[in-house]
Amino acid sequence: MIISPAKFSKPSDREIALERTFNAARDRVWKAMTDPELLAQWWGRGNPLVIEKFEFERGGHWRFVEHSPHGVHGFEGRYREIKAPERMVMTFEWDGMPGHVIVNTIELKDLGDGRTLLTARSLFHTHEERDGMLNTGMEAGAEQSYQALDRLLAR
Amino acid sequence: MIISPAKFSKPSDREIALERTFNAARDRVWKAMTDPELLAQWWGRGNPLVIEKFEFERGGHWRFVEHSPHGVHGFEGRYREIKAPERMVMTFEWDGMPGHVIVNTIELKDLGDGRTLLTARSLFHTHEERDGMLNTGMEAGAEQSYQALDRLLAR
Repeated sequence: MIISPAKFSKPSDREIALERTFNAARDRVWKAMTDPELLAQWWGRGNPLVIEKFEFERGGHWRFVEHSPHGVHGFEGRYREIKAPERMVMTFEWDGMPGHVIVNTIELKDLGDGRTLLTARSLFHTHEERDGMLNTGMEAGAEQSYQALDRLLAR
Repeated sequence: MIISPAKFSKPSDREIALERTFNAARDRVWKAMTDPELLAQWWGRGNPLVIEKFEFERGGHWRFVEHSPHGVHGFEGRYREIKAPERMVMTFEWDGMPGHVIVNTIELKDLGDGRTLLTARSLFHTHEERDGMLNTGMEAGAEQSYQALDRLLAR
């Protein structure tokens, strides 16, 4: 089945939203997003990923370090809400811009035909931070990660 | 000299601002805000405070735990910007509402007569989070902390 790339939109001047369909049942997609061994295989554009912290519960912290050919990038945040297997809300902060915090809300919808729709919404403190993120090539980076997730789900 | 309590305002629907004058030169106020031994004597309304982390540099983390008569409250965040002795920007998150992150910008202005004007601005992701913070009695709590700081500066 052909998979369409993530579709991005701007629901408000401080948000980015995206939709992406995966060829796998929701429980498998949820597992790939919440089992650190699986997560490390696709998060961070499929580059080698060190999961330094993964306290997957409300109030818990996470910290992932991506080793890309162009450098080492640390990301971290904290879980605000987790409702398996359909919804998680967490903060997201890149070491390169410490103290600039995004709230990510990720939802998985079971499409009933063995496919799963992921929707994600990112809320920034300011319009400028939102546009700064778009200018980093974040859209292409997210799609690279999702393609790595496609490959994992296909195995 | 009589000290007026902190004056609060709402510069926008996602912000809280405050002004507070201290009877001390700016360098002393800055030191009381950045030396962990001094900080522990006034931050958190003057209650016993455990400074678990205090990496006072851009990108560094902080974590303070206040032991009040009504319970234990953890707070944490990360430094975004530090310009001694006049300005610091950091995030602020209370354990009770993990993933709800405020950006605090604190500035000290030397009034030239041995007094210092502190201005602080807190930016929330949403209007609801801003109003929720005001409903916790945050204004009285901040003033209690500043009164503890007054006592420290008077010694």
